[in-house]
Amino acid sequence: MTQRTVFFVSDGTGITAETLGNTLLTQFDGLEVEKTTLPFINSAERARSIVDYINFVATQSAVRPLVFSTTVNDEVREILRTVNGLFLDLFDQFIHILEAEVGQDSSHAAGRAHGGANTARYNARIAAMNYSMEHDDGASTRDLSRADVILVAPSRCGKTPTTLYLALQHGVFAANFPLTEDDLENLVLPKVLRGCESRCFGLIIDAERLMQIRNERRPGSRYASLAQCSYELRRAEQLYQRHGIPYVDSSNMSVEEIAATVMQEKSLRRQTF
Amino acid sequence: MTQRTVFFVSDGTGITAETLGNTLLTQFDGLEVEKTTLPFINSAERARSIVDYINFVATQSAVRPLVFSTTVNDEVREILRTVNGLFLDLFDQFIHILEAEVGQDSSHAAGRAHGGANTARYNARIAAMNYSMEHDDGASTRDLSRADVILVAPSRCGKTPTTLYLALQHGVFAANFPLTEDDLENLVLPKVLRGCESRCFGLIIDAERLMQIRNERRPGSRYASLAQCSYELRRAEQLYQRHGIPYVDSSNMSVEEIAATVMQEKSLRRQTF
Repeated sequence: MTQRTVFFVSDGTGITAETLGNTLLTQFDGLEVEKTTLPFINSAERARSIVDYINFVATQSAVRPLVFSTTVNDEVREILRTVNGLFLDLFDQFIHILEAEVGQDSSHAAGRAHGGANTARYNARIAAMNYSMEHDDGASTRDLSRADVILVAPSRCGKTPTTLYLALQHGVFAANFPLTEDDLENLVLPKVLRGCESRCFGLIIDAERLMQIRNERRPGSRYASLAQCSYELRRAEQLYQRHGIPYVDSSNMSVEEIAATVMQEKSLRRQTF
Repeated sequence: MTQRTVFFVSDGTGITAETLGNTLLTQFDGLEVEKTTLPFINSAERARSIVDYINFVATQSAVRPLVFSTTVNDEVREILRTVNGLFLDLFDQFIHILEAEVGQDSSHAAGRAHGGANTARYNARIAAMNYSMEHDDGASTRDLSRADVILVAPSRCGKTPTTLYLALQHGVFAANFPLTEDDLENLVLPKVLRGCESRCFGLIIDAERLMQIRNERRPGSRYASLAQCSYELRRAEQLYQRHGIPYVDSSNMSVEEIAATVMQEKSLRRQTF
């Protein structure tokens, strides 16, 4: 199949254009694409320049480029629309329907989705991030009452990425604690977490996958052996069940899915930034 | 103005629906909204249940709810479409245009955008995250040659959130180093970074904002004084200029904008997950 060039164009960061385009593209199995993001296209001059660029790229291929745009500025969008490719713009498709429903014209202000600095919200997000960094891997027990959620799991089951994602993407105050061999043997939570069961959430993962991950860290160790991984995971699951801690098997889940599952299970408010 | 209830509905994590809806909503100044995300609506039963829920909520308000959906499954989407509200679905708007262009039917598989586990890509992302955690705030000088970018700035200018965002959202190997008083006085980079100038990127921030952030950490200290903040920022800018290090003033920028700017300036490939 001929490779398609794909451009994500925006007068802001390009994140919405990427999200929109990638979500659509995942629906086409086997489609080979070469993706480029072009952020901050916020003037007529820049728009003309990237139209020239995309048109040049288009001459190198038998098929037209796909251009996913989230461009608010009308002048810029009208220039982009002249591109020699399939031009799909979020605002083109939705904004008029929304204007009619809301009974209000839209502001056509660029860079709002992931831009600007609402100081209070920025600070809340950074506070969540600092909290989650400080409370990674049981590093601190200070201020645990502030945690929205406390992830628990054996080492290398995905606690840290989930914690950071919850903080950075959703403003959640997340702590995480490893389950030690003692905890697992006795089927108890780490001492400092007793009484916090209702805010705990557990992770498990496929034993072979855990073995592989641990072997990258400490090759050939007992810690990384399949027997040890299987034992820890089995005991972890028993521990969660005994203490009524909800948990998921994260083996086939993305960080986004684990985070969304945790928030749903714990009824946490999802903030967006 | 009457408050609108807004629902983000998806058969996956809901991230795309939130991104789509929030991007559109930011264009309506003064619109008061109450947002709820409903992820993993991936069966007819769940769809019927949330339609009932949204319809109930709708009876409590003088205006219809706005429902932003990214639902791939046709059966689920047809049920959602019956909701008593404005129903806007990403696939409804775009998928047929894309199918015609690509000459291929779409797969209608749910949860692809932020779901599933492509092990190689997952591992690459986690490797970037581990690297960036290890190299936060100059904590490690090991393997610096692996860094795609090295952020430098005085303390509390936004290095850590930018670093983590670059890693988690875009798979970038990012390190960051604070500029110490000695570095600033002598207008030199930390020793370990000499020779790495081409991969460095600097941050500055408004002096009063820095004063405020530092005062939250160490109230009333010399470190947090306006004089000290102004001095450090002035010298940092001189240092960047002297060594040809690109930099931005992050005062009015979101983490997303800083990250997008860094990637653009350094021509880093943006990965999406």
